[in-house]
Amino acid sequence: MAQIRHALNARRADDFAAWYQEVISAAEMAEESGVRGCMVIRPWGYGIWERMQRLLDDRIKATGHDNAYFPIFIPLSNFEREAEHVEGFAKEMAVVTHHRLIAGKDGGLIPDPEAKLEEPLVVRPTSETIIGDAMSRWIQSWRDLPLKLNQWANVVRWEMRTRMFLRTSEFLWQEGHTAHADEAEAREHTLTMLEVYRAFAEEDLSLPVIAGEKPENERFPGAVETWSIEAMMQDGKALQAGTSHYLGTNFAHASGIKYQNREGGESLCHTTSWGVSTRMIGGVIMTHGDDDGLRLPPRIAPQQIVILPMLRDKPEDQALIDYCEVLRADLAAQHTLGERVRVLLDTRPGKAAAKRWDWVRKGAPIIIEVGGRDMENGVVSLLRRDRLWDEETGKPDFQTPTRETAAQNIPGILAEMQSAIFSEAEDRREANITRGVTDFAEVETFFSGTKYPGWVEVQWSKPTGAELEEVIERLKAHKLTMRNVPIGAAAVDGACIFTGKPATERVLLAKAY
Amino acid sequence: MAQIRHALNARRADDFAAWYQEVISAAEMAEESGVRGCMVIRPWGYGIWERMQRLLDDRIKATGHDNAYFPIFIPLSNFEREAEHVEGFAKEMAVVTHHRLIAGKDGGLIPDPEAKLEEPLVVRPTSETIIGDAMSRWIQSWRDLPLKLNQWANVVRWEMRTRMFLRTSEFLWQEGHTAHADEAEAREHTLTMLEVYRAFAEEDLSLPVIAGEKPENERFPGAVETWSIEAMMQDGKALQAGTSHYLGTNFAHASGIKYQNREGGESLCHTTSWGVSTRMIGGVIMTHGDDDGLRLPPRIAPQQIVILPMLRDKPEDQALIDYCEVLRADLAAQHTLGERVRVLLDTRPGKAAAKRWDWVRKGAPIIIEVGGRDMENGVVSLLRRDRLWDEETGKPDFQTPTRETAAQNIPGILAEMQSAIFSEAEDRREANITRGVTDFAEVETFFSGTKYPGWVEVQWSKPTGAELEEVIERLKAHKLTMRNVPIGAAAVDGACIFTGKPATERVLLAKAY
Repeated sequence: MAQIRHALNARRADDFAAWYQEVISAAEMAEESGVRGCMVIRPWGYGIWERMQRLLDDRIKATGHDNAYFPIFIPLSNFEREAEHVEGFAKEMAVVTHHRLIAGKDGGLIPDPEAKLEEPLVVRPTSETIIGDAMSRWIQSWRDLPLKLNQWANVVRWEMRTRMFLRTSEFLWQEGHTAHADEAEAREHTLTMLEVYRAFAEEDLSLPVIAGEKPENERFPGAVETWSIEAMMQDGKALQAGTSHYLGTNFAHASGIKYQNREGGESLCHTTSWGVSTRMIGGVIMTHGDDDGLRLPPRIAPQQIVILPMLRDKPEDQALIDYCEVLRADLAAQHTLGERVRVLLDTRPGKAAAKRWDWVRKGAPIIIEVGGRDMENGVVSLLRRDRLWDEETGKPDFQTPTRETAAQNIPGILAEMQSAIFSEAEDRREANITRGVTDFAEVETFFSGTKYPGWVEVQWSKPTGAELEEVIERLKAHKLTMRNVPIGAAAVDGACIFTGKPATERVLLAKAY
Repeated sequence: MAQIRHALNARRADDFAAWYQEVISAAEMAEESGVRGCMVIRPWGYGIWERMQRLLDDRIKATGHDNAYFPIFIPLSNFEREAEHVEGFAKEMAVVTHHRLIAGKDGGLIPDPEAKLEEPLVVRPTSETIIGDAMSRWIQSWRDLPLKLNQWANVVRWEMRTRMFLRTSEFLWQEGHTAHADEAEAREHTLTMLEVYRAFAEEDLSLPVIAGEKPENERFPGAVETWSIEAMMQDGKALQAGTSHYLGTNFAHASGIKYQNREGGESLCHTTSWGVSTRMIGGVIMTHGDDDGLRLPPRIAPQQIVILPMLRDKPEDQALIDYCEVLRADLAAQHTLGERVRVLLDTRPGKAAAKRWDWVRKGAPIIIEVGGRDMENGVVSLLRRDRLWDEETGKPDFQTPTRETAAQNIPGILAEMQSAIFSEAEDRREANITRGVTDFAEVETFFSGTKYPGWVEVQWSKPTGAELEEVIERLKAHKLTMRNVPIGAAAVDGACIFTGKPATERVLLAKAY
């Protein structure tokens, strides 16, 4: 087997964090903005987010939600109403205190002391309290229920240690908020949206996830129950990729979300909230990327196919472009994975080989190069991003179908890649979940021994209070957290690994982002 | 002619401002949020914005722009770089000064004095300076040009007097930003985007607009030229519905947006910016609304057709729903105006007649009611929002085509309504522009005499400096402003109405929002 010269400098196996940063930079997805903790999402990264938005928005609307928009500013008094909620967010909040600038003594601008707000405004870290206000106005009777809203917005949490996509002070997300007449319906809706997230992650992003309930210490501030989908990154760490919360009547009580019930009495609503953010893009990178850069599942690739004529700044170029345009138009008229094929004919200046590697790093699923000889032979040179290298020769594994065959087969290849990339990730995850560990010492050995340890599933008795605190401390000593209690896990059949009491459920342990 | 009982309390002719507020409230488009100057955009209003976003985004992408996302926070020092720019916005800026809250003496939360930012951050009122920063990193050579970006975002301008959609402290918009190698290309692009806005306004929103250049006193802070599209509201006032700016090298100089030119030297880029906001929704209301509420051009109607079975909470209801479902499915499978027909079968609880008026007020283009007798006769009762009343009887002007005829004809009716509603607005505007006024006293009489005066087109000599100041003061005395110098206006042929000097161009005068 020949040596392969990969398209990135960093290797996943050597330095996963450096590799992650290099993918983001080499694929031109995002960069530091110079504003503390905030990133710039560049066109290729934002194009991926637009694809994700479109697909998830369709799923959210299909489950009966309407989009709406609420103010970015939340008055302090409003935010304070739910005690656990404010406690959970107060430490990381951007606070607006003035509404005008004036020249200071040194000539530079300063906040105008005359324009100080009577009540400071916080930049929303999440919108339960402000949307709760609106719900309390909109809901009068049981006929107004359920009320199912969603918002696409930017939110701000002043994170001390940031990492692009995974943890930034400002990020983009959708936040769903619903109000229901009773507990059973609200709890069911919490799980309906968790299932929407699972399907979105697995079917659209090819991201295998485990859906389950978070232990009580990992709940959203103010929630009664928090559920999550957890994905395994290639370094074995877990990424919480989406959460769905049953909020009980906590926020309804705080905001006065009441309704006249069928019997004519007054009841509090039961509410839910759930969100998915640009963090998920980090999950796509760390699940599908390789030492050549990003690999995109076709459904979320802004361009699924890039055609690169090997232009030489000569009059013959036009014939080559025309030859490529026939293929482009033929592909663009077809459908795959339920949508129009997205194909780009890239005729920008620059060497085709250099541009090829740019598109490899960006993760375009299929790259097609066309040179003069290809044109003479009526073929194209086709490279699949998921089978980049000929391991024998160490060279890119080009196939050379006829132009017509390429046009005919590519939609099917894209559909196949969408599921193949999922299976690859799922197989890796399953190979890296260890089940049946019954002794905590084994867990400790497991996580201290290997660099990419994966996850361990253990049985526990779901302790609370001081007993739970002790569990958390023991895990923290190894930088471990409980991810979730998977839905549909095998029945318990032994003792709690922490307390020795009879186990009541299974829980996943992992290092996490 | 019979008396018509309109669906709103306020009448346009009596109190246009009250009517505007009532449309917004009755159509459930938006409401005050309780946060100073910020509105909540309710699902129907946001659905209209989503339609506008989709249509304008397609046009922006078709002209070669990529979407990206930049931080909401701009460091003060960054913002200060362009003097006119900061001067223009400093008075209306939300300023973030702290990043944490702690409990104050009275137990309530206060900004933590220990968490004061070293440099305050302003919440973006527009993004020239922060995007300029990114451009300076991304552009090295002439090969990187033009760079054509767009951002969909929220922005904040601390307005003292707010009005829903038209002027709110936070609003949603798109802001395009481009960098070019030379002045000619940048100037041309400024006009290309103005034309995109014109086509969007006229073809998608049925909003007739006049495109032209703003006089110097109305320029965007930091711009060399500002162009606008201006629409006439039903009260005769003007609404600036979109602007496109040629920024020269001002922002390139401030942010260091330079490139290596073809000769190997270093040149400053010429930049443009252009934006359209949720304000345009206010323009749609004030152009197309009537005394029964909103009227929506089909292209931006979240639902184009609403089918209302007259349910009576009885077992027969199901047959009626089934009958309606056939029509719904038939319509949903068809296309009009280049897209899938959007049709809703509304089976929510409530009386059909009450729901009819809700949809009338919301401006759904076509409402179809189906009762038991309609079903027996194989017909439906169809109401066009643009021909609501039978003026003879004073009753809603229902047509009763067969169900099959309705399914067949509705896509065509929608297309016809899209242009009919445009023509109606255009005819009204043309009837209310007065041309050929040569004496300023006539202008004064004109605007003091009538309640809904429309616009006046005059000739002027484009004065500057103190002479311009005087013109502005004379206009201000009558609450008038210069809207723009229309592209393609007739040649000048006389004296300036202000200075008596030979006129150089024509300019529109109007009261404005």
